[in-house]
Amino acid sequence: MSEIQSFKRVLMGPGPSDVDTRVLDAMGRPTIGHLDPTFLDMLNEIKSLLQYTFQTKNELTFAVSGTGSAGMETCVVNLIEPGDSMLVCVNGVFGERMADVASRCGANVQRLDIEWGTAFDPQQIKDALKEHPAKVVGVVHAETSTGVGQPLEELSQIIHDAGALLLVDTVTSLGGMKVDVDGWQIDACYSGTQKCLSCPPGLAPVTFSPAAVDIINHRKTKVQSWYLDTTMIKKYWESARLYHHTAPINLNYALLESLKIVKQEGLEPRWARHLKNHKILKAGLSALGIQYVSQKGYELPMLNAVAILQGVDDVTVRKQLLNQFRIEIGSGLGKFKGKAWRIGLMGSSCSISNVLLFLSALEACLVEQNKTFEKGISIAAAIKEMNRN
Amino acid sequence: MSEIQSFKRVLMGPGPSDVDTRVLDAMGRPTIGHLDPTFLDMLNEIKSLLQYTFQTKNELTFAVSGTGSAGMETCVVNLIEPGDSMLVCVNGVFGERMADVASRCGANVQRLDIEWGTAFDPQQIKDALKEHPAKVVGVVHAETSTGVGQPLEELSQIIHDAGALLLVDTVTSLGGMKVDVDGWQIDACYSGTQKCLSCPPGLAPVTFSPAAVDIINHRKTKVQSWYLDTTMIKKYWESARLYHHTAPINLNYALLESLKIVKQEGLEPRWARHLKNHKILKAGLSALGIQYVSQKGYELPMLNAVAILQGVDDVTVRKQLLNQFRIEIGSGLGKFKGKAWRIGLMGSSCSISNVLLFLSALEACLVEQNKTFEKGISIAAAIKEMNRN
Repeated sequence: MSEIQSFKRVLMGPGPSDVDTRVLDAMGRPTIGHLDPTFLDMLNEIKSLLQYTFQTKNELTFAVSGTGSAGMETCVVNLIEPGDSMLVCVNGVFGERMADVASRCGANVQRLDIEWGTAFDPQQIKDALKEHPAKVVGVVHAETSTGVGQPLEELSQIIHDAGALLLVDTVTSLGGMKVDVDGWQIDACYSGTQKCLSCPPGLAPVTFSPAAVDIINHRKTKVQSWYLDTTMIKKYWESARLYHHTAPINLNYALLESLKIVKQEGLEPRWARHLKNHKILKAGLSALGIQYVSQKGYELPMLNAVAILQGVDDVTVRKQLLNQFRIEIGSGLGKFKGKAWRIGLMGSSCSISNVLLFLSALEACLVEQNKTFEKGISIAAAIKEMNRN
Repeated sequence: MSEIQSFKRVLMGPGPSDVDTRVLDAMGRPTIGHLDPTFLDMLNEIKSLLQYTFQTKNELTFAVSGTGSAGMETCVVNLIEPGDSMLVCVNGVFGERMADVASRCGANVQRLDIEWGTAFDPQQIKDALKEHPAKVVGVVHAETSTGVGQPLEELSQIIHDAGALLLVDTVTSLGGMKVDVDGWQIDACYSGTQKCLSCPPGLAPVTFSPAAVDIINHRKTKVQSWYLDTTMIKKYWESARLYHHTAPINLNYALLESLKIVKQEGLEPRWARHLKNHKILKAGLSALGIQYVSQKGYELPMLNAVAILQGVDDVTVRKQLLNQFRIEIGSGLGKFKGKAWRIGLMGSSCSISNVLLFLSALEACLVEQNKTFEKGISIAAAIKEMNRN
């Protein structure tokens, strides 16, 4: 395999998604200093475009110099002090992860576990908070391991009525479906760059509400992580421009360019594009008898978690997709390992062309797995759905 | 200023350094998945080239998905459990930082402070360890804030004789001067990509000795940082390839290319290049009456920390260098703020052309500051030094 061929991929997994050449070109510009006036201007632009993307006026909005999981850890370690109570809503791998992160920083963690693939009923959160009042409630907006989207508006009301802060994981949702930080009164929120923003991985956009900042400013103990301490990092992102650590310069070039693309498309058209392509994919998969593992009505547009058909070999199909068609999809994660596929339609990867290509390729793979179906049936269903709107 | 001009810089500060176009081109390749066989092969190559660069056979050698400071935190939080004693040798900003990081993860921190700009005498460490036995001793090899290089061989012997582990900051030294992890029996070591490796910032090479890994494997408590927990990260870098977090794909492309360049040049010629250009710069500065703030005999080749001449305005000169000559140098940090300049000769930035350009530009700036000297005197001294070898 030549080196050039080996980089040719259609990224339809749980992230990273395909990166636009505009973003790759921006990233390849010469590196300049982290205190260079030109770079500091770029940080201002990034902040402003992140505020737009998060739909917030929060002053403390920036990109953590690490991946989405570093964003999660940033939110948790800044809000939590040893002994603080935190309720973590767990219905997949990323809820599990948040509970782990919280316990490592000394939180008194209460887990609210429900079946993987389902969404939380607001009443469940209300009951849990009555039994165990919490300082912070952690919720995953788009659970990448199960493909479930969690509605947040009603939850937010309940959580704030109980006097808690709402911490939300929007790693997979940001830029692909509605995320309204101010409208939903989210207090702390983190994301990743390599999902619906279609920027290479390595940065984690975060935002903190004034209430969250107030809590952080009145901590009795230092934030346990020096690297992720927002009380210091903000002095670099704000006008003081105090050196904290050397920002990943070129990744920030890439993030700026990808956020410009988001702004140019507009949030609502972008969300609509993700939803439309999801429906088309779903129609095609359905024609093949493939079902979602996510609760009906809560399926994420950008992350389609589906049950692997009986008699079909997980690894063989994913290898054929990758080697013959250059398409990457994701395996099942955690409890869904070997049982589900995760088909991503994120950012630049979310196109009608990719949906049709994927369905055609999948049909070819299923034939090899001795599955019988009318050839082209998924494409026919997809085209029908495509023309419905 | 046009957008293209604004990215034209000669990076002669404390990092980032100039990045070779080969590295920028590599970074701009299409993003692929973090579990893609092509990418996993690249991780193997990176590990092997990091082992070469660190001069180690350590199995646990990888790139942390964060900047040099995340590398520091990775080493500390993995080795330290709450209540563990740690001796931190402080003679500049980065020793201070290590003491802060250690105290945040519950270490019982003993600081050994000496005057900034000086190096530690082995006897000082011996005495300190006699008074306060420690599990880990943290030392900065190349203190970027003061330009001091700390010899490590004798220290290592003393530290191991006292039963402690040796943790070393090689952020600024790796790839620019001798770093011999196995030869010097360093137990844990971190670096950054944007200094003498001349790769954009965003990754932190780290390595742990078998003794350090053994300590980590027998911890009683979980590592306080989920993101930096080597017990999980290693399962991704090793053959198991278990997903932990999404690696910063494109930055790893860049790191691989920059390490290939290091290997092609060879470590010894690379160290020699840094030393030779340092001597030439020093001769030129000396002709202008500019002195190092670092202890004589301990000056770092890649980071020349010099006292600002009396009557010369720090900010004005640095602005003129940047705006008129596109040269970035570093300001003083911490106690040296306003008193010193930090002139970097790191990796790709470390060339005879840059030395001559910088000296010429500096002369032009000093004329504006009403300094009197024989014009061209620094160039004459530099050329003389250049021809000495």
